[in-house]
Amino acid sequence: MTPSPGDRVRVEHAAVTDEGVLMPSSDEDHLVLKLEGGYNVGVDRADASVEVLERGAREVGDDDADGDASAVSFDDDLPTVALISTGGTIASTVDYRTGAVTARFDAEDVLRAVPDLAGRANYRGRVVANILSENMNPEIWTDLAEAVREEVEAGADGVVVMHGTDTMQYSASALSFMLDTPVPIVFTGSQRSADRPSSDNVMNAVCAVEAAKSDCAEVMVCMHGTPSDDYCALHRGTRVRKNHTSRRDAFQTVGAEPLGRVDYGTDEDDIAVSFREGKTYARRGDADLDIAPDLVEDVELVKFTPGMDPAALDYLDGKSGVVIEGTGLGHVHTDLIPRFEELVDDGTTVVMTSQCLEGRVCDRVYDTGRDLLDAGVVEAGDTLPGTAKVKLMWALANVADADDAMGRDLAGELTEESKPWT
Amino acid sequence: MTPSPGDRVRVEHAAVTDEGVLMPSSDEDHLVLKLEGGYNVGVDRADASVEVLERGAREVGDDDADGDASAVSFDDDLPTVALISTGGTIASTVDYRTGAVTARFDAEDVLRAVPDLAGRANYRGRVVANILSENMNPEIWTDLAEAVREEVEAGADGVVVMHGTDTMQYSASALSFMLDTPVPIVFTGSQRSADRPSSDNVMNAVCAVEAAKSDCAEVMVCMHGTPSDDYCALHRGTRVRKNHTSRRDAFQTVGAEPLGRVDYGTDEDDIAVSFREGKTYARRGDADLDIAPDLVEDVELVKFTPGMDPAALDYLDGKSGVVIEGTGLGHVHTDLIPRFEELVDDGTTVVMTSQCLEGRVCDRVYDTGRDLLDAGVVEAGDTLPGTAKVKLMWALANVADADDAMGRDLAGELTEESKPWT
Repeated sequence: MTPSPGDRVRVEHAAVTDEGVLMPSSDEDHLVLKLEGGYNVGVDRADASVEVLERGAREVGDDDADGDASAVSFDDDLPTVALISTGGTIASTVDYRTGAVTARFDAEDVLRAVPDLAGRANYRGRVVANILSENMNPEIWTDLAEAVREEVEAGADGVVVMHGTDTMQYSASALSFMLDTPVPIVFTGSQRSADRPSSDNVMNAVCAVEAAKSDCAEVMVCMHGTPSDDYCALHRGTRVRKNHTSRRDAFQTVGAEPLGRVDYGTDEDDIAVSFREGKTYARRGDADLDIAPDLVEDVELVKFTPGMDPAALDYLDGKSGVVIEGTGLGHVHTDLIPRFEELVDDGTTVVMTSQCLEGRVCDRVYDTGRDLLDAGVVEAGDTLPGTAKVKLMWALANVADADDAMGRDLAGELTEESKPWT
Repeated sequence: MTPSPGDRVRVEHAAVTDEGVLMPSSDEDHLVLKLEGGYNVGVDRADASVEVLERGAREVGDDDADGDASAVSFDDDLPTVALISTGGTIASTVDYRTGAVTARFDAEDVLRAVPDLAGRANYRGRVVANILSENMNPEIWTDLAEAVREEVEAGADGVVVMHGTDTMQYSASALSFMLDTPVPIVFTGSQRSADRPSSDNVMNAVCAVEAAKSDCAEVMVCMHGTPSDDYCALHRGTRVRKNHTSRRDAFQTVGAEPLGRVDYGTDEDDIAVSFREGKTYARRGDADLDIAPDLVEDVELVKFTPGMDPAALDYLDGKSGVVIEGTGLGHVHTDLIPRFEELVDDGTTVVMTSQCLEGRVCDRVYDTGRDLLDAGVVEAGDTLPGTAKVKLMWALANVADADDAMGRDLAGELTEESKPWT
């Protein structure tokens, strides 16, 4: 019996046996199986033997769909929100029901996947990628920025980007540097898949749509603010970090306070976006839409730890940029400094950040730091290491003096002129 | 005029002019200058021109010394605390006054440097290293463990290790794995040097000595618990991380609560050590002194970020161990997995940790993780990435099955059997 999406199947592969519902796969070489716990697993088709246990155990094409949702009418009184999917746990909500290999999905698909989104906006949907977020790469950031631009040009009043949580902070940083936007660009994702009782996907999606309708025209990340379902925090894209492997409130703003929050009441009318008093942020319509999506991709991030083999730096020869994740105020072992000096002399931009994550590098204080500055290493202030990597990729492609740019605030990633000991 | 320690001097080097008091230097090639702000800077002697502004502006040999402190008598009623110096901001308090190149300093030197330590213990002092902590390396960890053993064997009731803050967490981890100890081993340091009004060195030293007299026979880190001078937190050596570049309360326990605290009142009698209710910890005298100071040094930590060049892994061929700092639950780009599989096949122990820092890796959940497990990558649970590197160095030298050891708790670094979503 040839297995089809929706069948409950038993799959044997590499001495493991899994049972679950077969999902549509975007890739001919793999089977996608939804396990009972709710997680999707991928199995190499070549190595697997598949037995169908129950035909059509689940209608993966249209379950949860309201009978009358087949035609969603456009509501002139509502703003239009574009949903862009890149894959990940939250997107799988949409994707497995639609097949997800098509480049576009429509409002009907969106409401089938998350009925709670009904009545909040008119929706447009598109798929830019369908990947695990650990496979995110600079090329897709460029595609994503182009897709956002097209959606805004097509009249979207806000954009929601559905993204896996592993690398969301890197992608949000990339779009922060690439885009001048007159509307909100809101990344959201899910730490628990839709089939788990504790899933955060519906609340995160609803709050992200509300944030996309708000007055804050910045690139933001919208994820649970606490382990409860009380509110989502709105983080600036360049300041956010996944600080926990699995908690629903894993995402935190580092080195600042979040921009705002979306309160999530039991009554849908309780859902309200607010911004932190005193926070300066770009307002809707302030900026004209503009895009600078080019990146120089050969930029590496290297973390220094005690006992590190200097050979770890050998592959950096000829790179356009290197970001060091140093210790404390921005240090590495003294023996490594001449290597960084060679890189600088050969034309590599070398940037210092701190593995402390909070605070800012200041290499004027101690010997090692002064030697690093003498070697031509540039300080990234309080920019997060991952954000600094993305920024350097962008700066090398888009500004005349990347060294200078790394010391200035371009998209909220760097607090200028603060003291190292505050 | 030949400059001598204690002179106020003006130094010109590399187009920079500094003024300050010349300090004793442990190194013939460098001058050490204490700037007015309190920081020490090192200057290459060969490149510098030095002008003496004021002879003996400061008696660096014995200022702050009580006239009657020249002979400190042993008090039978007090415990004996060994102070071991490795360099760093706090040690400079002792070092610059004593010259610091000698391998031993005595109670008199200690009380000259930090008079507030008087009456709290009998002191023994020794210098194991005099380095910037970014230059810390595995060899010195071994020396440090040997020094601690000798001090305990010589009758110390507790040991305080003075250490630079940049790499303190790595050294504290190393000693945690190397030592079974019947007495407290307390690391302390200083985020602000002694000459700054906001210096934390006296309070940290006093609290560390009190912790060294306590009932908790573990390797701990004792540093400011808040930005105020109200208490020091006591962190388990394998769980602590410098989470801020410059704040006095930069050190935090990650993934757990601190072991305890040392309250620091205005009255010296208010200084009190307490441990968190319900915390299990090793008590004074529980363990016999034992030491396993060997390390396998060719263990590397590699941080994965999007866009990473796979060539970053080339230098790992033939290494004994590799710790990956992956994303989320413990992931890397799918394309890198075969490289890690090759390493495992060639005999390298490859361990997964998470750059989230909080939470634990769990590679059973998603495809990428399962592929990594299939490739032979070992999970380090909720062990911090830096701690995992040190642990792997130790495990490869001291246990038969390092793979197995990385999944077990050896020194409080890993919570066994917790679920990934708690």
